[in-house]
Amino acid sequence: MKALVYHGPGQKSWDTVADPKPIDPTDVVVQIDTTTICGTDLHILKGDVPTVEEGRILGHEAVGTIVAVGQAVRNLAVDDRVIVPAITSCGQCAACKRSMPSHCQSTGGIGWIFGHLIDGTQAEYTRVPFAETSVHKVPEGVTDEQVLFLTDILPTGYEVGVRNGRVKPGDVVVVVGSGPVGLAAIQTAGLAGAATVVAVDLADSRLEHARRFGADEVINSGAPDVEERIAALTDDGLGADVAIEAVGIPETFDLCTRVVRPGGVVANIGVHGAPTTLHLEDLWIKNVTITTGLVDGTTVPMLMKLVRSGKVAGELFGTHEFRLDDVLSAYDTFANAGANNALKVVIRR
Amino acid sequence: MKALVYHGPGQKSWDTVADPKPIDPTDVVVQIDTTTICGTDLHILKGDVPTVEEGRILGHEAVGTIVAVGQAVRNLAVDDRVIVPAITSCGQCAACKRSMPSHCQSTGGIGWIFGHLIDGTQAEYTRVPFAETSVHKVPEGVTDEQVLFLTDILPTGYEVGVRNGRVKPGDVVVVVGSGPVGLAAIQTAGLAGAATVVAVDLADSRLEHARRFGADEVINSGAPDVEERIAALTDDGLGADVAIEAVGIPETFDLCTRVVRPGGVVANIGVHGAPTTLHLEDLWIKNVTITTGLVDGTTVPMLMKLVRSGKVAGELFGTHEFRLDDVLSAYDTFANAGANNALKVVIRR
Repeated sequence: MKALVYHGPGQKSWDTVADPKPIDPTDVVVQIDTTTICGTDLHILKGDVPTVEEGRILGHEAVGTIVAVGQAVRNLAVDDRVIVPAITSCGQCAACKRSMPSHCQSTGGIGWIFGHLIDGTQAEYTRVPFAETSVHKVPEGVTDEQVLFLTDILPTGYEVGVRNGRVKPGDVVVVVGSGPVGLAAIQTAGLAGAATVVAVDLADSRLEHARRFGADEVINSGAPDVEERIAALTDDGLGADVAIEAVGIPETFDLCTRVVRPGGVVANIGVHGAPTTLHLEDLWIKNVTITTGLVDGTTVPMLMKLVRSGKVAGELFGTHEFRLDDVLSAYDTFANAGANNALKVVIRR
Repeated sequence: MKALVYHGPGQKSWDTVADPKPIDPTDVVVQIDTTTICGTDLHILKGDVPTVEEGRILGHEAVGTIVAVGQAVRNLAVDDRVIVPAITSCGQCAACKRSMPSHCQSTGGIGWIFGHLIDGTQAEYTRVPFAETSVHKVPEGVTDEQVLFLTDILPTGYEVGVRNGRVKPGDVVVVVGSGPVGLAAIQTAGLAGAATVVAVDLADSRLEHARRFGADEVINSGAPDVEERIAALTDDGLGADVAIEAVGIPETFDLCTRVVRPGGVVANIGVHGAPTTLHLEDLWIKNVTITTGLVDGTTVPMLMKLVRSGKVAGELFGTHEFRLDDVLSAYDTFANAGANNALKVVIRR
């Protein structure tokens, strides 16, 4: 088959490789019908994720069709249409039993193994371990684009941003960063009853997307009075109930700790490559909660229902389409998302 | 009357000052029967709390007897025996209604005003604003020493450590720092069902106190393998469910983020004077929750019941006794707590 293979920092190609087959009895093999590219793939290509070995097929998000099942697989069958999410999990270890498959011990303490520790989804086929506890069947009547982003960014925005941030009815929620994951938090904050969702980003083009995804207010973070403008949106001027960090750099994390009210929550989604300064000399007294996390995907079935009923428009993220054998062009477009006004690319078989 | 007055960094004296009287209709005046000294008082004397003006009477913890009530006071009367806690709160503002009197807006957004923004309790008498929503009547049959530490350290250890840390039955709880507030967290972790309470401190003498307050395991933080020893106390070697920071310096905060398990909670109690480095490059993926906070005192009535029933031995904290007019000696002893093997001083009328 053909696959997008990582050959070390800065190096990738569309190669002919061996077809995957079930190895463990709990495996399935899925034909990739639709996949996409994640910001994490770009990090890997920069060499930021040294655990990815040369020769690895990238990608951890796909919708596909099962073409082979291992001997122990009972609840999945050939021809089932499934989403292959970012997290692979056994369902049996202590972490899975704590509803924290992101730290599944059977996959080495980290549920994200596709396109990382094992071959991924930017290929014609992929092998899925622990299939019964990892993939989700796609219901009738929804398109691949509607459910493609349930593989990662939608549950990430919801679980790591909205749910960890404990958004509750009536809240003022600030989302710093209007990239795909920030937009997913914006789009799902309403599920928890947010009264006002405020998008903050440096790019006005991203803030236009934020409006489209449901932001009630948008603030360009280049403005000199970001904190004051956020405070002015709250009843008592004390700050946001929840601040969601969706960038992954020290400045935006720090901004979140400043715009949140006493007693509020800072929910970090951003993937950070460096330490940050935590101003505990101000924060120790502020009754704040700071959360971090990797997506668990435990809310995928719930989000799938909302997509199916039309309450969450999963397809909004896809701005550009490519054929799978043109995945290198898709990378070019996604790597220059700003210039192309791209959010996510939809890559079809 | 006589009172312990702050005269600027390094300067304090036992002065004759005017007797306090009710000013606002919701005030009471309390004769101080028993008081104590807090680590915060030492910080003030070092000049670390610039909001404390010269001429301020220090202290924010007392048991006393009401000697005068304002015109609007209905539920308190002269001769009532009360505890005067660290937090003063109106009961009516948005913060109080959120059960967060530590940020009472009627007292300027910070509930800790005694010995800070108004005169405090290291005196023969003190004026208590918002008395009905701030003081607690002391039930019959308990001594001053039993309830004195309900004014601050016991609810601080419980609310900011155990409750914010979401300690739950079966948890392994690490408390870093076995000073009075750390000991209060150790003492109350059992209320939430902790299976194993681990005390970590640099001083073996403090660790002996930790044992006395209920620690199941003690680890000197000078040991080279603190992290490994904590991990070894957990079922799966992944770390503590909850790590409580009760020191207030970057090193101990950082230790807490390292010894907590994926999915665990770091509850900061320590009063920090400096920023710390937050290793988000490791923590972003760790599903951790970090909390901070000032005591609210909302659990004082609950803790009072446990003291009364003998389930919480509040009197364990008092290691040294002084008369009120010898408060300067009490400061000498408390400021050199290590050399004196002192925890808290009990200062009686």
